[in-house]
Amino acid sequence: MATQASNPTGPHLAQMVGNAFVEQYYHILHTSPDLVYRFYQDSSVRSRPGPDGKMAFVKTMDDINVVILSMDYKECKAEIKTIDAQDSYKGGVVGQVTGWLIVKDNVKRMFTQSFFLAPQDKGYFVLNDIFFRYVDESLFVAEPSHIPEHP
Amino acid sequence: MATQASNPTGPHLAQMVGNAFVEQYYHILHTSPDLVYRFYQDSSVRSRPGPDGKMAFVKTMDDINVVILSMDYKECKAEIKTIDAQDSYKGGVVGQVTGWLIVKDNVKRMFTQSFFLAPQDKGYFVLNDIFFRYVDESLFVAEPSHIPEHP
Repeated sequence: MATQASNPTGPHLAQMVGNAFVEQYYHILHTSPDLVYRFYQDSSVRSRPGPDGKMAFVKTMDDINVVILSMDYKECKAEIKTIDAQDSYKGGVVGQVTGWLIVKDNVKRMFTQSFFLAPQDKGYFVLNDIFFRYVDESLFVAEPSHIPEHP
Repeated sequence: MATQASNPTGPHLAQMVGNAFVEQYYHILHTSPDLVYRFYQDSSVRSRPGPDGKMAFVKTMDDINVVILSMDYKECKAEIKTIDAQDSYKGGVVGQVTGWLIVKDNVKRMFTQSFFLAPQDKGYFVLNDIFFRYVDESLFVAEPSHIPEHP
């Protein structure tokens, strides 16, 4: 069934939508962060780790914009490693992104992001956006595992 | 706005649904993998890295069951690190899981999973399931970054 990965139908279209969204999102985030809020709507939910490390969420375009502008995204760069997307509920698209944030001194922090793109008159908007930045990398190992590498 | 993380409405309920799903999913995966396909429906899409490292997907409960049974999940254990969920499109729930798979010799492999739970008569079913296992951990650093730690 691995061959289905190259199936030109279904997931292929969702993958194109996911790739386009991620490329646009991170490009605008680092070049014009004041415009990023436009990817969202007032019904959107955006979760990020708070100062205490616990996940906190914001809703509405205004609040999302306030949070985005409070960060200095022009000073860091996202290096995208993987983008995977699937057709989802009632015309939506679910996607997962993994990559690294490159900040000062070329320090890299790994991250993963999950999103749901909801359909609207013209294209999609980000209804759900969950981002997690890894902080405990001490347990990572480079040795290949012997058995099940994914559930 | 970080205080919203403890808001008892909305996201709190979605978080409860997400937590319950993840706990049940991984418990059954490691104790009764032959029953895991029941979390899905024929409209579900399940993506995992193929033998070549590229993501491959399967659809339908039967094909998903075949893939699950082809793995030896009783020989590994998932250590869940984070579960974050949000209310999503038309009654659905979007979630993100991070953790480690512990296999033989206590080797740990980090993973991240994104899922969409679609509503059905009784509860939810897994409509979308995207799982990624990290293989390149050489770039991880433990040093705190100076600026934006999340987009």
